[in-house]
Amino acid sequence: VRISSQSADAADRGPYRHYMLKEIFEQPLALANTLEGRISEGHVLESFLGPKAGELLAKVERVQIAACGTSAHAGMVARYWIEEIARVPCAVDLASEFRYRDPVIEAGTLFITISQSGETADTLEALRHAKTKKIAASIVICNAPESSLVRESDIALMTHAGPERSVASTKAFTTQLMALALVTLLLARRRGLTAEKEKHYVKSLLSASAKVEQVLKQDDVLKKLAERLIHKQHALFLGRGTMFPVALEGALKLKEISYIHAEAYAAGELKHGPLALVDEHMPVIAVAPRDELLEKVKSNLQEVRARGGELIVFADQDAGFQNGPGVTVIGMPHADELIDPMIYTIPLQLLAYHVAVLKGTDVDQPRNLAKSVTVE
Amino acid sequence: VRISSQSADAADRGPYRHYMLKEIFEQPLALANTLEGRISEGHVLESFLGPKAGELLAKVERVQIAACGTSAHAGMVARYWIEEIARVPCAVDLASEFRYRDPVIEAGTLFITISQSGETADTLEALRHAKTKKIAASIVICNAPESSLVRESDIALMTHAGPERSVASTKAFTTQLMALALVTLLLARRRGLTAEKEKHYVKSLLSASAKVEQVLKQDDVLKKLAERLIHKQHALFLGRGTMFPVALEGALKLKEISYIHAEAYAAGELKHGPLALVDEHMPVIAVAPRDELLEKVKSNLQEVRARGGELIVFADQDAGFQNGPGVTVIGMPHADELIDPMIYTIPLQLLAYHVAVLKGTDVDQPRNLAKSVTVE
Repeated sequence: VRISSQSADAADRGPYRHYMLKEIFEQPLALANTLEGRISEGHVLESFLGPKAGELLAKVERVQIAACGTSAHAGMVARYWIEEIARVPCAVDLASEFRYRDPVIEAGTLFITISQSGETADTLEALRHAKTKKIAASIVICNAPESSLVRESDIALMTHAGPERSVASTKAFTTQLMALALVTLLLARRRGLTAEKEKHYVKSLLSASAKVEQVLKQDDVLKKLAERLIHKQHALFLGRGTMFPVALEGALKLKEISYIHAEAYAAGELKHGPLALVDEHMPVIAVAPRDELLEKVKSNLQEVRARGGELIVFADQDAGFQNGPGVTVIGMPHADELIDPMIYTIPLQLLAYHVAVLKGTDVDQPRNLAKSVTVE
Repeated sequence: VRISSQSADAADRGPYRHYMLKEIFEQPLALANTLEGRISEGHVLESFLGPKAGELLAKVERVQIAACGTSAHAGMVARYWIEEIARVPCAVDLASEFRYRDPVIEAGTLFITISQSGETADTLEALRHAKTKKIAASIVICNAPESSLVRESDIALMTHAGPERSVASTKAFTTQLMALALVTLLLARRRGLTAEKEKHYVKSLLSASAKVEQVLKQDDVLKKLAERLIHKQHALFLGRGTMFPVALEGALKLKEISYIHAEAYAAGELKHGPLALVDEHMPVIAVAPRDELLEKVKSNLQEVRARGGELIVFADQDAGFQNGPGVTVIGMPHADELIDPMIYTIPLQLLAYHVAVLKGTDVDQPRNLAKSVTVE
């Protein structure tokens, strides 16, 4: 399905060849906009969620997230944060599964939906189902102010990413992450996060834009790297912790617009099956910031090399990964667990974009897909 | 890695060419053995879990499952059952993720691990981590009586599948499902499942062996179907509800032993990305019993056909699916939500097996993989 008015919108793209590239490069601004007016002096303001927010959040004992596609990946990242930083139990479900599986929804549940358009049919139905139970509150993370999910949720947290035209979501995803980071910190404060720690995290969130900007400067490097993938039919993305959903999102981007069969795995699952697929035809793309899991990831990656798989590793520039035969390392800015997912998503978006351009696919309107899935 | 003693074991395989085929055909007996001595007059006996079981289960308010690979798929099936039938909140994590993510573990948690060998390193570490918290009890679903997980768990529920030699797990998986079904019914009874309903479910569990036997009779049909896959590089497996983890397991089998890049999706996610991959080179394998989701699955599948993808559908024989150009339907015995996952796994195992044999891979010892992952 092509948008018939595409040519009329060409001016909107500015100097960019595709909406997707424009939207990738808008991310530093979009991330700043998502923070705008919501933090002050190292403190996340609760008031931006509206007058009812304080009362509603006081009732929260657990979190249930429901979303689809890219938004579900944002939800998966948030689960790690909400449990680790806020110490609140959190579950994530695909909305299409949640709405049909007759889930147990406990009292005290904060029900979070995530949807760029606010009209995703399965997500909306998941919210409607949750509202028939005694939940504490519903929050939607959304980019479309007038949408159904915004109207039907107790609290709407707008991502302020600006219109997203490319079917493959980019800035909507990273701003969803930013919005979810704010929710995490609000929940964490109510569970005893110290002012000092909050200040540290807020500082980190404020640094995200500049770090994303820094990664965008590697565009040429990724364009060159893309040449290595265009004749591949497969790719395996690996990550651990919050980098697992980032790997899922990177694989989804490559799938959506370059039609390469990319699949993501939690790196620890490699030996439980997917390693059988690894040979010289299966490049492996690993997302491995400098953190406590780095050594584990390194050991996983050695196995990939031993099987002839070509490796592309996105790693903290200080992580000690080195280029070598069959191993390409792309250094990334040093960050922390809260902004790593935003930063490491960027090169995966650019990689997918350049592969698609080189393959000559219709980048902004990939075959078979629509921007918003408003039917089941 | 080949087992050097393989030839010495040839006699064990009986008339079967590979352990995997032998173990697939052992499933009716293995499933019956898993039930043996554990049910009586339409009632699941609690006593088989040992003298402490009653006291421990009385404290259970929620369930956390941790497992790897095929066992994690069994855990994903169990989550649907435990929430829908027992009405107990349930979370499932990959053990490799759980042990590193500093999860919130609440009081009243029944911690369930699943491992054929009982020695899976990440699963064992997940249990050890959980035991440092105030959990209600730990249960391991296991096939190896003398194993570390059995020793370190409060309750060991043995699957009685007999030794599994093929690296690709088959009878271990279906007997894990049977064991988890028993746990589900024990939890459900404590939450008010009526004796009448319990009787219905127990009757269903008792019918599983015969239904699996019936499916095994379709071996020749699946052997013929396998010819259609051997030149494919990709496959997409789709399912909803408990059939989603069954689809994941089917895709894993094909990956592990035939080296075809098979990936599974929850069918509702199709439009959120993977549909872009579907063309004439991407066969789609759907698992669609006759249940409330059937109509949804049908609509998903029409989209696949519209994009030129060849369809193989495993569906209830009364479900109203018909063969047609590009659509092959394999009729399955009529069953219910508790035994569907056991029954629908069988043809996916057979399909993967025959594809591997036709491709000439080392079926019982696929490249790069070991039977038990006892290192991280």
